[in-house]
Amino acid sequence: MKIVVIKFGGTSVGSINRIKKVAEIIAKYKKNKYKVVVVSSAMSGVTNDLVKKSEKISDDFDKTEYDTLVSAGEQISCSLIAGRLNHIGYVSKSMMAWQIPIQTDDNFRNANINNINIRKIINYLKIGGVPIIAGFQGVTKNGRITTLGRGGSDYSAIVLAKSLKAIKCIIYTDVIGVMTTDPKINNKAKKIKVISYEEMLEMSSLGSKVMQSNSVQDARLNRIDVIVKSSFSKNSGTLITKRKNIINNKVITGISVTKNDAKVTLVGVVDKPGVAASIFKPLYINNINVDMVVQNISADGHKTDITFTINSKDLNKTQNLLKFNKNVKYNKILFDREVSKVSIIGVGMITTPGVTFRMFQSLSKKKINILAISTSEIKISVLIKRKHIRKAVVSLHREFKLDQ
Amino acid sequence: MKIVVIKFGGTSVGSINRIKKVAEIIAKYKKNKYKVVVVSSAMSGVTNDLVKKSEKISDDFDKTEYDTLVSAGEQISCSLIAGRLNHIGYVSKSMMAWQIPIQTDDNFRNANINNINIRKIINYLKIGGVPIIAGFQGVTKNGRITTLGRGGSDYSAIVLAKSLKAIKCIIYTDVIGVMTTDPKINNKAKKIKVISYEEMLEMSSLGSKVMQSNSVQDARLNRIDVIVKSSFSKNSGTLITKRKNIINNKVITGISVTKNDAKVTLVGVVDKPGVAASIFKPLYINNINVDMVVQNISADGHKTDITFTINSKDLNKTQNLLKFNKNVKYNKILFDREVSKVSIIGVGMITTPGVTFRMFQSLSKKKINILAISTSEIKISVLIKRKHIRKAVVSLHREFKLDQ
Repeated sequence: MKIVVIKFGGTSVGSINRIKKVAEIIAKYKKNKYKVVVVSSAMSGVTNDLVKKSEKISDDFDKTEYDTLVSAGEQISCSLIAGRLNHIGYVSKSMMAWQIPIQTDDNFRNANINNINIRKIINYLKIGGVPIIAGFQGVTKNGRITTLGRGGSDYSAIVLAKSLKAIKCIIYTDVIGVMTTDPKINNKAKKIKVISYEEMLEMSSLGSKVMQSNSVQDARLNRIDVIVKSSFSKNSGTLITKRKNIINNKVITGISVTKNDAKVTLVGVVDKPGVAASIFKPLYINNINVDMVVQNISADGHKTDITFTINSKDLNKTQNLLKFNKNVKYNKILFDREVSKVSIIGVGMITTPGVTFRMFQSLSKKKINILAISTSEIKISVLIKRKHIRKAVVSLHREFKLDQ
Repeated sequence: MKIVVIKFGGTSVGSINRIKKVAEIIAKYKKNKYKVVVVSSAMSGVTNDLVKKSEKISDDFDKTEYDTLVSAGEQISCSLIAGRLNHIGYVSKSMMAWQIPIQTDDNFRNANINNINIRKIINYLKIGGVPIIAGFQGVTKNGRITTLGRGGSDYSAIVLAKSLKAIKCIIYTDVIGVMTTDPKINNKAKKIKVISYEEMLEMSSLGSKVMQSNSVQDARLNRIDVIVKSSFSKNSGTLITKRKNIINNKVITGISVTKNDAKVTLVGVVDKPGVAASIFKPLYINNINVDMVVQNISADGHKTDITFTINSKDLNKTQNLLKFNKNVKYNKILFDREVSKVSIIGVGMITTPGVTFRMFQSLSKKKINILAISTSEIKISVLIKRKHIRKAVVSLHREFKLDQ
């Protein structure tokens, strides 16, 4: 069976007209002789409305009831899609997670899929039916409804694709695919045709909003080819796949930018073993995520400067934690909330020397000062003043030939 | 176990504030040492909104998907109630029909309950929990969601009360109980404290909107005492019970009025065996409900006049069916869309002679002409011009001492 899993996000099913359009998209795959399995999110706005209701009921709404509550959203969208497909002459029915079942652990609000019983789905495909499966939800062994956390419908789609041995998984969303960089920052941004899981992981964890990191990771672990495309246009989208499937002609695949960084520098820290741990332990305990860390070599062997970045929203908390940290001695603290991280990402850099140099030279030509650097195998990130973002991205985009 | 089943209608859970109020009502029963089983409808407006969505998707929306769609409404209200009870310190969880299960036939949109597995409910009551059960919904043997038709949450509550051997079933709604007559027609209308199933059946099938006839019939067949009361006031409500539980001091319990009748008269029908059947068969086939039928004795044994009433909305269809009915010969047809049926109802009339006379005399004094009469053991209905409704109801209400 040539099975294809198609997932529709909230905006793709955001209105009655959108749902009619979605039914047409599904019909097109059926005409192409695919066995089609559909996964849908709730209509956009519905989940948020339900969440707001729960917040008005209690500032600590029961987790298990929360999952029952918000999963009603997918029940609505899926039955409407199935109803529309029936209307235009297809055999289709909605399937909630408990009807399949899609079994999860009982980690309510953020459950993990343990097992999908594919028998009902396969049998339905065999008679030519189109199952419309509720994304984002599961059911525990005890028959309680769970949800899979934010981005959960993508997770449902990818695990379904794996379980059903689908030839591909197509994620319909409201953007045409993964872009080389944020088009709002650089209007020369182009759609990326093919990208590896690893690059996509870097892109999404660094601020591209197309797919959540954990969904990309799910696809990578399950070796599922994912196509991200728009349900609003005919663009062919972006294929996210194994690195070896990609014939690369570009060193860099994309440039990502974060917008909510803050920089903290501790000047004149007494340099002794364990000092870094003493600084970061209270941040870790308080769920403050530390991103880039730079420690200058201490000239006299006694004092050093330590710089790190955090999310701006955590800055006040971090200031207090450092102020009252008796285990660390230093001269003063400096803060800067107006910084951003610009990253160039590409598997091509592994085999191409000089990428770092080209990046630094390009920024230097624009007189952009680099405040910190961090690198991985397929990524180079630099911290710069936020006001330089646009200049930096435009120049790097041109330097690495992403404009073309 | 002293189990009480409490059902809340759509307006009773119509907003976040109402749901908070409902949680307080439930808590009050818990404090009174009852084991409380709650049945809830969807928040008012939600079901209608979902129905409208289905109508926009298809003018012939698939029945099974319709049930999945609209049952999402109860999933929302029940999880919110359970969430609120948890918030104020009670052990509570929502239970959808499939989780119990409440098993029905597969007559989608209008299913009948075949069986309720009470084990989970009883176990939960034993640990002090308050189950919040989704009304209006069931599940087929094959695991598809069904709904029970209009008024279905009352049906759920009554069958649950029966299955759980509850000591009572309380239906919370937006009226203080069953009234002696429509307060909009007669402001002297009083709340009825106790009414028999049979009287209530006549009251509801004749236009009182408190409970649907089939729900009253369910209560009667299951011998469940039902209390109808308001979640908006402290009024003690109306008890609907077995006739033998009632000590009656009034001949008449209530007066009901219909507002959508139309009268049809066939003048000069050739009178031969089977003619009535010939007239009514096409109406029956076309789902047109015929209510009162009066046939005058034919003076010469050859011709007769036949009068009957139908719902006004069916009048045009009826006119056409009669016009093209080749099997019936008559001189002419007369129509009157401006008629109404006024009924006096009471088990007291069985043992009290002269009720018919008092009714006719009362109307005659007000110069109200009676167009047709029909009676049952506990009811006398008369058809009158619609413009006389108020005068008729006020005078009968006084005549039978319902004003007091």
